[in-house]
Amino acid sequence: ALAQDDPLPSWNDGASKQAIVEFVEAVTTDGGADFVAPADRIATFDNDGTLWVEHPIYTQLAFALDRVKALAPDHPEWKTTQPFKAVLDNDMEALGKIGEKGLVELVMASHAGMSTADFEKIVTDWFKTAKHPRFDRPYTELAYQPMVELLEYLRDNGFMTYIVSGGGVEFMRPMTLEVYGIPAQQVIGSSIKTKYEEVNGTPVLMREAEIDFIDDKAGKPVGINKFIGKRPIAAFGNSAGDRQMLEWTGAGGGARLMMLVFHDDADREYAYGPANGLPDTHFGAFPQDLMDEAKDKGWRVISMKDDWNRIFADR
Amino acid sequence: ALAQDDPLPSWNDGASKQAIVEFVEAVTTDGGADFVAPADRIATFDNDGTLWVEHPIYTQLAFALDRVKALAPDHPEWKTTQPFKAVLDNDMEALGKIGEKGLVELVMASHAGMSTADFEKIVTDWFKTAKHPRFDRPYTELAYQPMVELLEYLRDNGFMTYIVSGGGVEFMRPMTLEVYGIPAQQVIGSSIKTKYEEVNGTPVLMREAEIDFIDDKAGKPVGINKFIGKRPIAAFGNSAGDRQMLEWTGAGGGARLMMLVFHDDADREYAYGPANGLPDTHFGAFPQDLMDEAKDKGWRVISMKDDWNRIFADR
Ligand SMILES: [Ca+2]
Ligand SMILES: [Ca+2]
Repeated sequence: ALAQDDPLPSWNDGASKQAIVEFVEAVTTDGGADFVAPADRIATFDNDGTLWVEHPIYTQLAFALDRVKALAPDHPEWKTTQPFKAVLDNDMEALGKIGEKGLVELVMASHAGMSTADFEKIVTDWFKTAKHPRFDRPYTELAYQPMVELLEYLRDNGFMTYIVSGGGVEFMRPMTLEVYGIPAQQVIGSSIKTKYEEVNGTPVLMREAEIDFIDDKAGKPVGINKFIGKRPIAAFGNSAGDRQMLEWTGAGGGARLMMLVFHDDADREYAYGPANGLPDTHFGAFPQDLMDEAKDKGWRVISMKDDWNRIFADR
Repeated sequence: ALAQDDPLPSWNDGASKQAIVEFVEAVTTDGGADFVAPADRIATFDNDGTLWVEHPIYTQLAFALDRVKALAPDHPEWKTTQPFKAVLDNDMEALGKIGEKGLVELVMASHAGMSTADFEKIVTDWFKTAKHPRFDRPYTELAYQPMVELLEYLRDNGFMTYIVSGGGVEFMRPMTLEVYGIPAQQVIGSSIKTKYEEVNGTPVLMREAEIDFIDDKAGKPVGINKFIGKRPIAAFGNSAGDRQMLEWTGAGGGARLMMLVFHDDADREYAYGPANGLPDTHFGAFPQDLMDEAKDKGWRVISMKDDWNRIFADR
């Protein structure tokens, strides 16, 4: 085929690209042993670290920190109360230690207490102005171009592409169509509870400071079953949070494709593990036992350094 | 147009049919004032009493009763314990009084404690054999033919059709594609929690005896936001449980269509209100204040007797 016909131009020739193309050809060849009807061609993608950058901190955490700073004038007590003090002091070391409880407090303070419509506007406005500290681009321009091509390639072959992320569903939905071509109803994520109320005679959904669902680890197959009701035939992740999604996908019959993005490219993006001796991280850790399980179960590990000839779309 | 071109042949000419056709033409006329892009053409449908029969009891309750009877040999204590005793004694009067707590007990005893895959098989097998006591047909043949035509007509005009039901999502999904042309991922319903586990090295999702989400009343807009992330432009229901879904749909800008099926045809189906002086019911009540709100807000009430020239598809 001519280069211009290559649906995956940002992928180097190699085992990863070959595995993708062979899988897609297998499940779309009518009459073939591995043919899958279009209605069952479900592919699920983790978001942070799989479809876009998650370092130095998760994008949603960057949003939460900006929101806490914006709301601080109304909360003088935050100057002396953790985890808010760490945010206002830009104390990254203290922030690294706030733990899950502290993270939940930050999310509730910044993501709850307004209507879903107001939150959507806040998020949309933030995406228009916030920039990544290293790449100096809007976060919406930090999707991995090879993965965007993969999403399109799968959809061109009759797949439904879903995001299945530990991130907040209402944080992602304002940008997924533009960035990934994935509509709101195909975004599965963590959520807080919403409550139907009438405000001045108009119905609104108010975002409450209470966790509804955590779409991470064992929550990913639960979320997939809850929202899709079908088992994926392909799943893509990058960290220990994706283990159960890949296990669940792999446990179905017929051809399957499970892949993990490995961040081994400090020059063009970041390098972190701790698998294969790379540095450990608070954000998107890929532990050695996940690498071992991948090898054991035939999950394919994508090397950003070797498999991708570019990371981001040109500006 | 020739009769054979009518996309809604089971609808009599009249205000209801006219409202549907005018709405669809308005939102699909490119360049028109009410044009809606296909991605935003979301239509939501209640299931019981809106798309299929819900009398003399909800279909899912008939399933639960059959399951309790099937499981009774393993539960000798049920012979003397309510609500199970009422089921085993076929004591419909006692069953009518078990209330929500009793219903939940019946659902948990019959719907939990197995994997999602096992439950799907139990439901699928039940639909193959169970028959409605009056119409002597499988429940899957008791969809309202005019509504099936409406679903197809909307989809032919670029709509995505969703079920938004108080019924259990995993009870509906095994039949919605065949009966309504609605795939699993477009079925929103009530749910119990599932838990990811490994059984003999194979991952399963176990159904736990704990409510996850009640997709009824104010839960319907919550569920719509959770699963779709977009506000519908059309919504169809038949009871007080649909009030908030129709309010939420109607509160958006642009052309909207909200309709309520009114069961006023005792000869061909059932007649119940208590609106308009029809008998009250435990299953799908349409109270007078809902009728008043419909009039007030311009929601259209479908008369089964006058608007539909047939109720079910021919066998
Ligand atoms: Ca990730
Ligand atoms: Ca109903």
